[in-house]
Amino acid sequence: MKALKKPNILNIDNIARSQLFQIQSVNLEFSNGEKRTYERMKPANREAVMIVPIIDDNLILIREYAVGIENYDFGFPKGAIDPGENALQAANRELKEEIGYGAHSLIELAKLSMAPSYFSSKMNIVIAHDLYPEQLEGDEPEPLIQIRWPIAKMMDLLDHPDFTEARSVSALFLAHRYLLQNK
Amino acid sequence: MKALKKPNILNIDNIARSQLFQIQSVNLEFSNGEKRTYERMKPANREAVMIVPIIDDNLILIREYAVGIENYDFGFPKGAIDPGENALQAANRELKEEIGYGAHSLIELAKLSMAPSYFSSKMNIVIAHDLYPEQLEGDEPEPLIQIRWPIAKMMDLLDHPDFTEARSVSALFLAHRYLLQNK
Repeated sequence: MKALKKPNILNIDNIARSQLFQIQSVNLEFSNGEKRTYERMKPANREAVMIVPIIDDNLILIREYAVGIENYDFGFPKGAIDPGENALQAANRELKEEIGYGAHSLIELAKLSMAPSYFSSKMNIVIAHDLYPEQLEGDEPEPLIQIRWPIAKMMDLLDHPDFTEARSVSALFLAHRYLLQNK
Repeated sequence: MKALKKPNILNIDNIARSQLFQIQSVNLEFSNGEKRTYERMKPANREAVMIVPIIDDNLILIREYAVGIENYDFGFPKGAIDPGENALQAANRELKEEIGYGAHSLIELAKLSMAPSYFSSKMNIVIAHDLYPEQLEGDEPEPLIQIRWPIAKMMDLLDHPDFTEARSVSALFLAHRYLLQNK
């Protein structure tokens, strides 16, 4: 594949911020001399983790209120990796907080990006086997609804109207592929 | 599945903005009385479209500079749906702008969300067959690099280090499933 010559970043301004978000304006000069100004979220070092938990012949999913769509999202447990944790440690903690289980076996399937023209975020997709009950206190405002979904019908999740999040959809396919390859 | 009682939205403030982004602070009261303040991007009505173009025995992908990761992303053509367009019309226009082809056959495979706790964005995934050459002027600062990838090896894309965008990964799996079911 042809090597690509990246544009030069001429200048980066922090132009707006809130508690959670920092918006930057970036002046670029492409290798052909074209100049552009793009906006993006300030890149963060912190990655996140999404877990596909397997118990008996089922996947475990959760329903959690998502204010961006003002509705309950239906997908896999997830959360930010805390300082000092690696992805698998964060996965195990999030499992304990969100569904009340730890896992003896955690395997990383992929690291996904999201709208990279605007965001630097990375989501590590992890499959979790050999669960054992252990609850850690989370910071959810209300208990998360837990749903067990038969592995035999896992691809039917694609027909569920609330199972639409791109990382959850990718995680479903990646887990399906992993399970077929590791029967 | 149990009916979920949505929290009441008590108040929405616009707290920061740039040309592209508008950040809101939302005060919520959950049905159990818990109150929270969440930040989100102001919901937009405009959806987007991502296209999996098929020509002969190949998929067509593009490499485009993404300032959020300061690198060239490797994925499928995509863009916003313009006012007055439906998803399939936008898909055909984006194809002409980004890869120089129109399509006689466009089929919608899914509508994906992305991090719905913060964003309302929807990406319509479309598969495009029966391509014909037609170029429309795009607004790219430099020509997009086009890559043809054999359908017979399409799942090898998952091993490419720059093919990581969650909507592109979902689109790859959805197209693979569609092609298997419609042989």
